[in-house]
Amino acid sequence: MAVGKVEHSPLLPVTGVRLSACSASLYKKTRPDLAIIAIDANASVAAVFTRNAFCGAPVIVARDHLDNNHSPAYLLINAGNANAGTGKQGIADSRETCQCLANLGNVPVTRVLPFSTGVIGEPLPTDRICRILPQLHDSLAADNWDAVARAIMTTDTIKKGISRQLIMDGQKITITGIAKGSGMIKPDMATMLAFIATDAAIDKSVLQEVLNESVEESFNCISVDGDTSTNDACVLIATGKAGNTPLQNVSTAEAAAFRDVLHEVCLLLAQAIIRDGEGATKFITLKIRGGRDRQECHKVAEEIAHSPLIKTALFASDPNWGRILAAVGRAGVPDLDIETVQIYLDDICIVDGGERAPSYSEEAGREVLARSEINICVDLNRGNVSLQFWTCDLSYEYVRINAEYRT
Amino acid sequence: MAVGKVEHSPLLPVTGVRLSACSASLYKKTRPDLAIIAIDANASVAAVFTRNAFCGAPVIVARDHLDNNHSPAYLLINAGNANAGTGKQGIADSRETCQCLANLGNVPVTRVLPFSTGVIGEPLPTDRICRILPQLHDSLAADNWDAVARAIMTTDTIKKGISRQLIMDGQKITITGIAKGSGMIKPDMATMLAFIATDAAIDKSVLQEVLNESVEESFNCISVDGDTSTNDACVLIATGKAGNTPLQNVSTAEAAAFRDVLHEVCLLLAQAIIRDGEGATKFITLKIRGGRDRQECHKVAEEIAHSPLIKTALFASDPNWGRILAAVGRAGVPDLDIETVQIYLDDICIVDGGERAPSYSEEAGREVLARSEINICVDLNRGNVSLQFWTCDLSYEYVRINAEYRT
Repeated sequence: MAVGKVEHSPLLPVTGVRLSACSASLYKKTRPDLAIIAIDANASVAAVFTRNAFCGAPVIVARDHLDNNHSPAYLLINAGNANAGTGKQGIADSRETCQCLANLGNVPVTRVLPFSTGVIGEPLPTDRICRILPQLHDSLAADNWDAVARAIMTTDTIKKGISRQLIMDGQKITITGIAKGSGMIKPDMATMLAFIATDAAIDKSVLQEVLNESVEESFNCISVDGDTSTNDACVLIATGKAGNTPLQNVSTAEAAAFRDVLHEVCLLLAQAIIRDGEGATKFITLKIRGGRDRQECHKVAEEIAHSPLIKTALFASDPNWGRILAAVGRAGVPDLDIETVQIYLDDICIVDGGERAPSYSEEAGREVLARSEINICVDLNRGNVSLQFWTCDLSYEYVRINAEYRT
Repeated sequence: MAVGKVEHSPLLPVTGVRLSACSASLYKKTRPDLAIIAIDANASVAAVFTRNAFCGAPVIVARDHLDNNHSPAYLLINAGNANAGTGKQGIADSRETCQCLANLGNVPVTRVLPFSTGVIGEPLPTDRICRILPQLHDSLAADNWDAVARAIMTTDTIKKGISRQLIMDGQKITITGIAKGSGMIKPDMATMLAFIATDAAIDKSVLQEVLNESVEESFNCISVDGDTSTNDACVLIATGKAGNTPLQNVSTAEAAAFRDVLHEVCLLLAQAIIRDGEGATKFITLKIRGGRDRQECHKVAEEIAHSPLIKTALFASDPNWGRILAAVGRAGVPDLDIETVQIYLDDICIVDGGERAPSYSEEAGREVLARSEINICVDLNRGNVSLQFWTCDLSYEYVRINAEYRT
């Protein structure tokens, strides 16, 4: 059960992108688990991948293909198997499935980018994937975003997708994005896959820059459990079919307008991952204010978001602010004076001057924590930098899901 | 329920140290929660405190008293209330209880060191403490170690204490130590209190140096949940009553012999904390080998010890080695080549060359993980440094304990 209202607007087609999804029997239970996203020629594609030194075979192959060919024609995505920790055979398997799709589309193999998510360390069943690919390729259509959003889910309980439109250079521009992720979620990047497409015409370098910026403040600012996965990826496609003059400069008003909407799409997808965090019963927005730089704000946010003691207290609706203050104290902020720190639960000041605020009452704290959506604001009162970060609580259900994951 | 056999030998008196414990009604339920350790004149005392920027009032007061007086006469310890996040009033309260004990013993207040553990953010009930102190002071005796080990417990399910003896300079030397800790346990320091005494004669500077070394490889190498507390402290007392020539140099054979036994005492106490970790059902020894330096070995150990995904898999006896390899990969080891990494569960090689070892079978992995004491060895194969670290699994019980902590 996801927390609160998870944004999932009707997903609008993006001219120049066609999709399809089906079951390749990668799970014991038959469910959609394989998808293709086909990209028309002349699109720009930007991507961000996990920074885990142990990355899955598809990440290695996708990076390599992107380096050798700047015009991907297909994204090939499977759930149920991460193809990670599978060594040289895993890389060969990933290439084999790409080759199979490349043959169907009559393109070089480097124009296919693979993405996998699921159990680590099991061989990828290439035969099951290759067998169904012709049928999948025949079913490509512009209005299959919802089916693909469903096919990439693993422990997700709901599909995640968002569409937004804007006017740019007199043309109506569409941005549609989908994502998956629920556990093994932490910045750098968060453990997840996200695929976003727009029909705007945008140069590749501009596209990569706006993607990097948006990811930094969305997918890199969420944590379910502090575990960075091996297979994270976020891809942004710009098909150029909308008819606008191609964006070649990030400093223009058009670029700013596009970035704002892209940022909204990334943020809502990132938040949807947290709302659907494994076992989550609370959606927590951390607002870190008054920092000297972004890095120290990030440290404080991560320390709070990764504290099992805070997360279990949130689960219990227990306003145990001492645990929050202890996390702030150990976050490694240089020369932190704890006596300047203020902490708010929604609009209730709970800590002032490094101790319980005189006006605070336990009842007021409990009332806030009984809500399913809570803002925790930490004001370091030593600078002007602020940052937002999203996380969830730690419940019995998280333990159950992850204890039983492979059984 | 603690995991495995928790070392708790009969606690031997240490000449020059007397103790007492009682209930000061700091818990709703009547239980021992207040203790005094009285130290004869001319003892050396060394101490290590939490590095959390948000530290409890007693840590501030104890550090200040130690700086101003090198001959503590009393340690005053309470459970049930951490006196942290209590601001200036907390410091005044802590000093008030010290003054009360100082009056009874007719010593300056700076010769009393306070220690508190328990709930953060509640005012310290000084009246209840001061009222019972005369009775407690009258009960001081050399054979009360067990009673004090019990009085300092919070969520601990068993008391933790160890005694060892050695011959030094022809004299029989005794070392007796007690500790508490179960949750909010992480290095720097671990969240805990430990009080160790010996009758050996040892100069303060030597005492501090051997304590630092022992803490580094024991209490700073354990983690239950990655939460560093506000009130950690470890005190080592050397009363000098054993009649040995005072140790003035760490480079002597006598110092080495003492250090070895002190190290064993610290290690067994630290391991006892992990065995009694909140909700623990498994006692995990992490052996990180083949590192270039201690720091990178420590990073790998911490990343594994703090991963909720690994800890829940351990709880489920699921040999999900991919989660371990993912943690190694994200630990921030510079230029890590994942293809050199080997991982063993006890004597079973599970990962070789960055992928599942050819000889590994799931059954063999499950057999190891069904045990309650497990060694996980990670060989980075890039240097000669190794390190051991101890942790436990993450169970439903951990969530229950911490969700219900204050209710």
